[in-house]
Amino acid sequence: MAQKPSIPKGTRDFNPEDVAKRNYIFSTIKSKFERFGFQPIETPSFENSDTLMGKYGEEGDRLIFKILNSGDFLSKVDEPLYALKDSLKITSRISEKALRYDLTVPFARYVVQHQNEIDFPFKRYQMQPVWRADRPQKGRFREFYQCDADVVGSDSLWQEVEFVQLYDEVFTALGLKGATIKINNRKILSGIAEVIGASDKLIDFTVALDKLDKIGEEKVKEEMLSKGISEEGINKLQPLFTLKGDFGTQIDSLKSILNTSEEGKKGIEELDFINNAIATLGLKSAKLQLDVTLARGLNYYTGAIFEVSAPEGVAMGSIGGGGRYDDLTGIFGLKNVSGVGISFGLDRIYLVLEELGLFPETITKTTDVLFINFGDKESLFSLQAIKALRDNTINAELYPDNAKMKKQMNYANKRNIPFVVLVGEEELKNNQFTLKNMTTGEQDKVNLETLITTIK
Amino acid sequence: MAQKPSIPKGTRDFNPEDVAKRNYIFSTIKSKFERFGFQPIETPSFENSDTLMGKYGEEGDRLIFKILNSGDFLSKVDEPLYALKDSLKITSRISEKALRYDLTVPFARYVVQHQNEIDFPFKRYQMQPVWRADRPQKGRFREFYQCDADVVGSDSLWQEVEFVQLYDEVFTALGLKGATIKINNRKILSGIAEVIGASDKLIDFTVALDKLDKIGEEKVKEEMLSKGISEEGINKLQPLFTLKGDFGTQIDSLKSILNTSEEGKKGIEELDFINNAIATLGLKSAKLQLDVTLARGLNYYTGAIFEVSAPEGVAMGSIGGGGRYDDLTGIFGLKNVSGVGISFGLDRIYLVLEELGLFPETITKTTDVLFINFGDKESLFSLQAIKALRDNTINAELYPDNAKMKKQMNYANKRNIPFVVLVGEEELKNNQFTLKNMTTGEQDKVNLETLITTIK
Repeated sequence: MAQKPSIPKGTRDFNPEDVAKRNYIFSTIKSKFERFGFQPIETPSFENSDTLMGKYGEEGDRLIFKILNSGDFLSKVDEPLYALKDSLKITSRISEKALRYDLTVPFARYVVQHQNEIDFPFKRYQMQPVWRADRPQKGRFREFYQCDADVVGSDSLWQEVEFVQLYDEVFTALGLKGATIKINNRKILSGIAEVIGASDKLIDFTVALDKLDKIGEEKVKEEMLSKGISEEGINKLQPLFTLKGDFGTQIDSLKSILNTSEEGKKGIEELDFINNAIATLGLKSAKLQLDVTLARGLNYYTGAIFEVSAPEGVAMGSIGGGGRYDDLTGIFGLKNVSGVGISFGLDRIYLVLEELGLFPETITKTTDVLFINFGDKESLFSLQAIKALRDNTINAELYPDNAKMKKQMNYANKRNIPFVVLVGEEELKNNQFTLKNMTTGEQDKVNLETLITTIK
Repeated sequence: MAQKPSIPKGTRDFNPEDVAKRNYIFSTIKSKFERFGFQPIETPSFENSDTLMGKYGEEGDRLIFKILNSGDFLSKVDEPLYALKDSLKITSRISEKALRYDLTVPFARYVVQHQNEIDFPFKRYQMQPVWRADRPQKGRFREFYQCDADVVGSDSLWQEVEFVQLYDEVFTALGLKGATIKINNRKILSGIAEVIGASDKLIDFTVALDKLDKIGEEKVKEEMLSKGISEEGINKLQPLFTLKGDFGTQIDSLKSILNTSEEGKKGIEELDFINNAIATLGLKSAKLQLDVTLARGLNYYTGAIFEVSAPEGVAMGSIGGGGRYDDLTGIFGLKNVSGVGISFGLDRIYLVLEELGLFPETITKTTDVLFINFGDKESLFSLQAIKALRDNTINAELYPDNAKMKKQMNYANKRNIPFVVLVGEEELKNNQFTLKNMTTGEQDKVNLETLITTIK
């Protein structure tokens, strides 16, 4: 192979620094998930195709990576079908497995498959890669991690309260202070649609409303009009566009708009409950904000809808989202299991932490001390000390070759190793170590005990 | 969908207990890898097909999972080829990507692709899943993790010494005392083949020798004879079959057998170096044992060959293996980069720890305390305490629903939660908590401070 090898577009290699930074985010989220009582599960990277296909709409089906059957896969394709040479029709005959597209559908499958072993309410978290045959672009990859926490088997609103707190805890722990947790409720959206006489156009209505931030009030109204929502209805929306003030004030405005809709009032009640609880419990650094334009995957959510944006001043889409769904496991035949969940957008959080310089410096340092190699006798002596250092939880290594001093010191510098130990003939004779602090340049002759305590 | 959903054969769901146990093994190995100065990298789950195909032999090519191209993949197949309806020939036209088959080839690809950013010698570790379209059977899966540590860019034998110590450290830390680290050297095998006049039959010779444990001396000799190795040559092997005594004694016997082979003598010298260093440094619980029948992937290894077996009394194949290879990156055009590496067999280590009852009990406990839900007022009060507990690194949760007491207590029992807190009307009034120790059954009224210190 003459040309330099490469990787498929939309995928990434992660070098040691990348991995350290990513693991820092993962482990922070993981520790908070567990602090809140969530338990980890893992599902296979590929599922039977019929588990995934048809769950994400036509576009989703297209973006699912299919795995070719092993062996003589064409032998299962009968002649009339083969003669059509139709990629779409032939796929299900030559491919029975597909790569996970998200963690939600596999989780639903897991709950149904293992329902007799699970103690409900089931609080699970899952942090695994997913794959999408999307057009790769800046910040969008074909392989990326999702970090999800969900509770199924309870419709208690305390879960929503807990998730708001969980978001606050995670982002505070990551040093990402001032994140905005936006909340809405599907029942509010249904109520508004009802009030303006557009219940049959709920999707069109919310899709348009969702764009308010991006295209502004006038364009939103135009879009609604073009979708057949009446001018009279749109006029009733006016207060929505100018909703102002804190959570409570906005709730009061909504109450007056929605006073004729039972569903709308239910939605207000739910929002009120969550807001009051959070007001009592307090948040560490995030703020909870009502956003009636928030819709996300509306078909999916039945109650609360969440979305988190990075602190002001950072241009980045949402760094998390989620909501309540009442019938996720229904697609696999298990009815009436209400669930609510949130997810964290790892790649975006990574970019935000990078932009704000919030990664702690310590996480990218893996080796504490390098022993310079001056030959076999010195190396054997060094390895005995290294063993003692490692027993004291110090990450230590010996440069493997008796290379030029400069080369070995360069290695220590590039690897960001804070201490270097030199053992030459004299040190060997006196059972001593020359310890060099790579930051200050200071150099001292010490015994093993001092070596351990200094590096520690 | 009427029938219960399932997962593809050869794949597994991992429940919270499985994940906790697997993570215990992963994190033990990871911490020792880092203790020895290894750094993590990660590569994509799928690679371009031409990176993987042809690297594992014909059988390997067959076992690689191929990913179907997206879109109208058949449009790229010209009519004459399509008319053949030949699965093998059509594959490369309809599939350009494939799932990782091991971590070694992607690592070689990574080193070549990123050679200008890497500081050699490069000590990397990698713990990621791999996929093989193998026939699933007990202990053999289609998706499984590999845990590899390698050093490339140095031919120093100190690495081999370090890897023996690393195996010892990991298995000792896992409580798996008394593992046997078997070592051999490709040069010894070549030397023996040379001495018995079978240099051209090195593969046949080592394949037969590798079976000594399983089929015994007579059958091994028969197989060698049938492969065209002379009777005179086989007679010269006799001392090999009866090699006895400690490492040093065996080395001495080998010296007399191999005194006419330069390569054989080099192999002995290397083994001697490693054995002497280990004798000085000592091992914590494993033992190093010379095994001249050990061959593993011979084509691949050029120096040391390692294999680890579980402690005596546990019927299990090898739980780790590795060796020195001199030209791994050559397949991608980067010559003369010597490497040496070892890997850990996660699934087998899991089974051994399970069989010997070596998983620490604490690892499967995730939540420290459950608050019983007696209604909204009590829950809000409870969540304030829960917040304080969590701030003190205690994993705490509120049962989400005001369900029957028995149901809530059952949940705590099944989840293996050691403490339960009850907050009823009285506790609410007195700002107190009833703390129940689920192990002893003891129950006490305490204030928040005592609650925190007791659970901690």
